[in-house]
Amino acid sequence: MSGVVTPVRLADASTARLLVTCPDQPGIISAVTTFLYNHGANITDLDQHSSDLNGGRFFLRLEFQTPELDCSLDALKQNFRTRVAEKYQMEWRLNYARDKKRMAILVSRHDHGLMELLWRTMRGDLPAVIPMVISNHDDLRAEVERFGIPYHHVPVTGSNKEQAYAEMAEMLRGQADIIVLARYMQILSPAFVSAFPSQIINIHHSFLPAFVGANPYLQAWERGVKLIGATSHYVTDELDQGPIIEQNVQRVSHRHSAEELKALGQDVERSVLLRAVRWHLEDRVIVDGHKTVVFVK
Amino acid sequence: MSGVVTPVRLADASTARLLVTCPDQPGIISAVTTFLYNHGANITDLDQHSSDLNGGRFFLRLEFQTPELDCSLDALKQNFRTRVAEKYQMEWRLNYARDKKRMAILVSRHDHGLMELLWRTMRGDLPAVIPMVISNHDDLRAEVERFGIPYHHVPVTGSNKEQAYAEMAEMLRGQADIIVLARYMQILSPAFVSAFPSQIINIHHSFLPAFVGANPYLQAWERGVKLIGATSHYVTDELDQGPIIEQNVQRVSHRHSAEELKALGQDVERSVLLRAVRWHLEDRVIVDGHKTVVFVK
Amino acid sequence: MSGVVTPVRLADASTARLLVTCPDQPGIISAVTTFLYNHGANITDLDQHSSDLNGGRFFLRLEFQTPELDCSLDALKQNFRTRVAEKYQMEWRLNYARDKKRMAILVSRHDHGLMELLWRTMRGDLPAVIPMVISNHDDLRAEVERFGIPYHHVPVTGSNKEQAYAEMAEMLRGQADIIVLARYMQILSPAFVSAFPSQIINIHHSFLPAFVGANPYLQAWERGVKLIGATSHYVTDELDQGPIIEQNVQRVSHRHSAEELKALGQDVERSVLLRAVRWHLEDRVIVDGHKTVVFVK
Amino acid sequence: MSGVVTPVRLADASTARLLVTCPDQPGIISAVTTFLYNHGANITDLDQHSSDLNGGRFFLRLEFQTPELDCSLDALKQNFRTRVAEKYQMEWRLNYARDKKRMAILVSRHDHGLMELLWRTMRGDLPAVIPMVISNHDDLRAEVERFGIPYHHVPVTGSNKEQAYAEMAEMLRGQADIIVLARYMQILSPAFVSAFPSQIINIHHSFLPAFVGANPYLQAWERGVKLIGATSHYVTDELDQGPIIEQNVQRVSHRHSAEELKALGQDVERSVLLRAVRWHLEDRVIVDGHKTVVFVK
Repeated sequence: MSGVVTPVRLADASTARLLVTCPDQPGIISAVTTFLYNHGANITDLDQHSSDLNGGRFFLRLEFQTPELDCSLDALKQNFRTRVAEKYQMEWRLNYARDKKRMAILVSRHDHGLMELLWRTMRGDLPAVIPMVISNHDDLRAEVERFGIPYHHVPVTGSNKEQAYAEMAEMLRGQADIIVLARYMQILSPAFVSAFPSQIINIHHSFLPAFVGANPYLQAWERGVKLIGATSHYVTDELDQGPIIEQNVQRVSHRHSAEELKALGQDVERSVLLRAVRWHLEDRVIVDGHKTVVFVK
Repeated sequence: MSGVVTPVRLADASTARLLVTCPDQPGIISAVTTFLYNHGANITDLDQHSSDLNGGRFFLRLEFQTPELDCSLDALKQNFRTRVAEKYQMEWRLNYARDKKRMAILVSRHDHGLMELLWRTMRGDLPAVIPMVISNHDDLRAEVERFGIPYHHVPVTGSNKEQAYAEMAEMLRGQADIIVLARYMQILSPAFVSAFPSQIINIHHSFLPAFVGANPYLQAWERGVKLIGATSHYVTDELDQGPIIEQNVQRVSHRHSAEELKALGQDVERSVLLRAVRWHLEDRVIVDGHKTVVFVK
Repeated sequence: MSGVVTPVRLADASTARLLVTCPDQPGIISAVTTFLYNHGANITDLDQHSSDLNGGRFFLRLEFQTPELDCSLDALKQNFRTRVAEKYQMEWRLNYARDKKRMAILVSRHDHGLMELLWRTMRGDLPAVIPMVISNHDDLRAEVERFGIPYHHVPVTGSNKEQAYAEMAEMLRGQADIIVLARYMQILSPAFVSAFPSQIINIHHSFLPAFVGANPYLQAWERGVKLIGATSHYVTDELDQGPIIEQNVQRVSHRHSAEELKALGQDVERSVLLRAVRWHLEDRVIVDGHKTVVFVK
Repeated sequence: MSGVVTPVRLADASTARLLVTCPDQPGIISAVTTFLYNHGANITDLDQHSSDLNGGRFFLRLEFQTPELDCSLDALKQNFRTRVAEKYQMEWRLNYARDKKRMAILVSRHDHGLMELLWRTMRGDLPAVIPMVISNHDDLRAEVERFGIPYHHVPVTGSNKEQAYAEMAEMLRGQADIIVLARYMQILSPAFVSAFPSQIINIHHSFLPAFVGANPYLQAWERGVKLIGATSHYVTDELDQGPIIEQNVQRVSHRHSAEELKALGQDVERSVLLRAVRWHLEDRVIVDGHKTVVFVK
């Protein structure tokens, strides 16, 4: 389960995925795998985690092949609910890998994260569809529309914040399974954040919890660190405090100016955001309080 | 970054581990986990792999807690054999994590790998006991005996090779579960190798398959590579061709002499060998033909 | 960590660079820096290397600021030639950092390296101009022409090879300072290669010298390596044997198929090629026989 | 100047090193290199840095060979002072690489950093002599004395702190060129710190400035970070705020307990401390206010 690998899996048309969270107790894996086996599912990947051997929570991710399934996936869901999930008080979801998530992107003026997500999605490397890009600036319209993706310019000023976020929430409601902040430089309103719990992914341009807040590259340069980093996390009401999905760093030295740290850091941001988004899209991330469980290859 | 995570787990006294290999087919996980659950075992870790979805082999590693076991581990083994293993044509082993493996070490004159293994084992960081160190030189005797470990000097010359390896095999037979070549600079005889299948771990001082054979650091320097590496692998009859367990690299530049590559490389060798040995000792490695399956954290 | 630092320097308009190679002997640095100082140049970066303290070659890279220069850069060159370079038998070049190199790109069907180079160049992040892209296929024409860059389709078949390369050499002669093979899947002719000495940069999809030749990812998968890599090198007459500029690796495991290695590897190829090209464009690479000296930050 | 490489250089008996810091201005390199050349020194390595092109400070590190020197090193120093250093207001030092620094070690109960430093020094891999180890516990006495190194137990309690640090300062005065805190778990007194400016190197068990203070691994575990780190820095009066020499990180996941983070982290601490100490011993580090300039290979 080596953490660093970016998993690249061309999901087979018949692959389904089950994600489960529940209070830990003996017998869960047996119950789930036996249920699936009895319905003709062939399990091809299984990953699990217990947050604490005594009274912790249990996390499970399964991939299985469905050609021999003895019922529809909907029927399987119905059966799973009544025969397994309720008994173990499970939160769970079950879907085909082929059903791509809808990923909306919010961005301000930096295009490096946005372009990576657009480029990867368009060439089929990220399993998503992009229903829209929203920005508080109009700068990147041409780049986005070139891909045939709607671009909405929603200015956010001191006075219209409430209204702007209400407008954005309205656009996104029912249209997006995940909202990616690809360097969106505004702080979202609590109402907006609470409307999309564990669905908003941000990229912060530092190795959190170092250098919270504004201008992290300048902070890093002033402190004289020898590594700079980036952190992708779910957005919660507390600024820069949401559950971390992925982080990485880049070596720097006294030779680099604050400006150069920023340029170097953008490459780290790009790759860290890509991994976090990919793992979310592949149903590999489960939020566990203020942390995450990430089932990578 | 130092690369992949070295798993460090202080095995609980009641933890048992099951390793399984068999022809892949649906239902194996269900059968194994249900068997364990029915005997009161609490599964706390499970990792699995299928080498090919069609007609491949299946690999499984389980950790479970035994306080509520309804029988002895010996009885559990007996039952597992007849009720599960035979049906699925399994190769398997089942043991307590607390039962440390016996690790013999073969070394020539370089002490960096040897010292790391001795130091880690002595402070309880590696789950092993060291019954003996064997060397074709007498140089490192004092270092080894200081730890209270027997040191056997078995010279290997052109004329006595057969006899020397026979003597070493005799010493080791029944005394070692794993034989680590911590820079042992002689090529083992086929008879010796075949006496300890998948039980001899070597550290090769290059990023295999680059720079097979003698003097890899000199070869690397002459080629002008920008990374040097080390490879830990099981020993087979083909020189430097055995199943790879772990590899890592270190960045170098035109500024480094061949001598400096060697010094830098020894740190990589040391950490790569340590990881490979740790994973073997923790029952995380299964040989799959000329490759390995390594279930790391 | 992403490995070595990608230097990102926004070259100041008044920055000049001097690269020197000559037989090593005492006094060279003193001679060069005193010459520059006497002409009003302010040295702001200096890096040097001696391949061997006894009878080796000496390599020097200098950046200096020119506002206080007491003559034109052309006059400085003329003086340098007669007063310094000839005495020490120097090969050298001297130019303004602001004078961007012309970078032609050869590509077949894989677009990942191409797109990175185009995107970086267009946003001003790579100090180059792209006079043309040449391909043996027509697939990527739209992607390239969208940036306003000429796209030449020159099919290469078994029978027309000589003619095709002659045609390409003709197109490129005098139009390109560097030719980047961003996954160009044909083997260039000796005539073509010798027409552009130390000017053709290739990206090979393996950690050379491992897995020379075709299908390196399949070779890597079959060998069961734990790291895959990519190598950027100058092209010489010997296939995959030219001086290495940059290499990097990516951790993989038994879980990855050969197809997944290829997908993962493309990200390594992309970043390795980018660094090698950037360093060449910034006059940081000097060929030293079948190796390179790379003066990175 | 790739940062990540641990430089390993077997200093030649005739190698001398010059370190210089002064206000930046044109002509410094020319003045220094010409001075050395005129005295028969052969420069074999040169590294320099300017903290700011306008009004910054200049840093220079030179290695040169002395067989052809036309005077003694003492005479060279005398001449350098009057002819070069005073003119440019230089702080500088000049010494033979063969003159090993005296490295005292302070430690509490963790032995991983201590053992690495002892082992490396004893086998000649670190250019130092160790005059003494001081500890506030008596636990590691046998390990240290085995190497023939004096071990001083100086208990530090709430009431005797002043006296204990005065006693330690007395022991160390004139006996140590560098004091390494290899996990010394007491906060030094301001008087002690000010007695050894830029001579005390600490290893902090987090990626500073994240997780300042006590129990950083527990803090890291609670925050759910995906990388843990270690930081080696010079000690100043402000806790954990001194100039950073080196940092590195290690990937972790949700699978690791706080206890496991600690065990993994100790390997990072060990290698980070080793690099920082080596660079200091090789005269590669210059303090620049609250940062460092590190001239690595």
